[in-house]
Amino acid sequence: MNLPPSLTSLHNPLVKQVRKLHQTKERHRQGIFLLEGTHVLEAAAAARYPLKHLFYTTDWWQRHAALGLDLQGQADTVREVAPPVLKSLATTVHPDGVVATAARRQLSVPDDLPPIVPSLGLAVERLQDPGNLGTIIRTIAAAGADSFWLTDDSVDADHPKVLRASAGQWFRSPLQTYPVLSAALSAAQARATQAGQPLQVVATTPTASAAYWALDLTRPTLFVLGNEGSGLSADVLASATHEVSIPLDKGVESLNVAISAALFLYEACRQRQA
Amino acid sequence: MNLPPSLTSLHNPLVKQVRKLHQTKERHRQGIFLLEGTHVLEAAAAARYPLKHLFYTTDWWQRHAALGLDLQGQADTVREVAPPVLKSLATTVHPDGVVATAARRQLSVPDDLPPIVPSLGLAVERLQDPGNLGTIIRTIAAAGADSFWLTDDSVDADHPKVLRASAGQWFRSPLQTYPVLSAALSAAQARATQAGQPLQVVATTPTASAAYWALDLTRPTLFVLGNEGSGLSADVLASATHEVSIPLDKGVESLNVAISAALFLYEACRQRQA
Repeated sequence: MNLPPSLTSLHNPLVKQVRKLHQTKERHRQGIFLLEGTHVLEAAAAARYPLKHLFYTTDWWQRHAALGLDLQGQADTVREVAPPVLKSLATTVHPDGVVATAARRQLSVPDDLPPIVPSLGLAVERLQDPGNLGTIIRTIAAAGADSFWLTDDSVDADHPKVLRASAGQWFRSPLQTYPVLSAALSAAQARATQAGQPLQVVATTPTASAAYWALDLTRPTLFVLGNEGSGLSADVLASATHEVSIPLDKGVESLNVAISAALFLYEACRQRQA
Repeated sequence: MNLPPSLTSLHNPLVKQVRKLHQTKERHRQGIFLLEGTHVLEAAAAARYPLKHLFYTTDWWQRHAALGLDLQGQADTVREVAPPVLKSLATTVHPDGVVATAARRQLSVPDDLPPIVPSLGLAVERLQDPGNLGTIIRTIAAAGADSFWLTDDSVDADHPKVLRASAGQWFRSPLQTYPVLSAALSAAQARATQAGQPLQVVATTPTASAAYWALDLTRPTLFVLGNEGSGLSADVLASATHEVSIPLDKGVESLNVAISAALFLYEACRQRQA
């Protein structure tokens, strides 16, 4: 295989095009997103996720030849780049020598009918922080939850910080987005009831008298969490079959949304494994 | 009170000095740190935390006069600044109009003897991410834990991202730092045994066969968590009375450290309130 010479110019048109992917609107316009760093690309290789461009430095290739060869087989174009070019492509301050691009995943479910009836799942309205989204993706995988739904006004799932915080779990995440969460909840509940396995939809509100651990979570359960600032919307709250709260010491208003999500999912794990 | 005229120059010596606090080494050299934004300063006011400098824009003062007057009473110097100056003082991209400085807290315990014997606590070795530290501070407060120990090679507790992620709980945090965590653990265990209330020190390792929820956590308990990359050090592990793990689905190596901390602390809350 004859590779083209190393890219050394920051003004190369391809380099400029990929650098634009740092911006959300360019990721939407070009329909591709960035994958940065060895850890994320190891996960992409394991998932056989098709890549568009693969950029690496000589130094990175020398340390990761086996992974590089794997990724080469999944990428449309492969270019060795000079370290300053690699640095300009990455959103992190200290990139570790490899950056790729890939087509954005189709996450939205147009007809609002969830692909499966959840056994254990989580839905979040208007989740805004990419670090929190990545952390939740990682926790969903660890807890073995099978459903993770977001409203489509949430932060983009392919924001670089989401991939980073997901610690490699991004590629196998059951994440789906919905324009109207209450419609998805109703559809899932109807289908679950039809199948003779009613789905409990557990809303979390600061005023609920029951603690989350007081509920029987061995039944099919979907937790719904609101936006950190504004809480749950009225129509999602109306779809819930139960309301619970997380006990908080006095003077504390709330927990981080990724922390709340983890407490719910792992309490369900505890009850199911006990 | 006759206030000096509004500061408009980015080259003003005081402005330049405070801007340097964005860097860790300057916070150490000057012995002061930054407090940014209305939410953090509301918490500082509630805690009566003494301030050194208070900077605000006219617009901010008009929206928050009561808080401004409160803070004025706690600050050595108070300066109205032009919006571009305020923006230059803040580390965030969209500051909300107020920034202050304060003397750094003395967190280290020189003789390694913890101030109290923990009833429920957490110790973390070499915690590196400031967002995780802030999130843990918030969770410690919510769970009503009374002890939070870090090794002193962890990220600085007064990093701007720590204050932000702690959601106002920073000022009342029981956080202490230790040069040698195992020495602090031994000292606390000896004192607890003397008082007839033995302290269980629960280490978390990926290979432990017992899940964390299998342990009796109604007894005085301190959880110890290792650095995300390298795990627990041998001497801390040797101080532990119990080892537990968090069950993880296949293909998942670990959880975020702030998530792990929350699962432990809230399982103790559950057992103690049940």
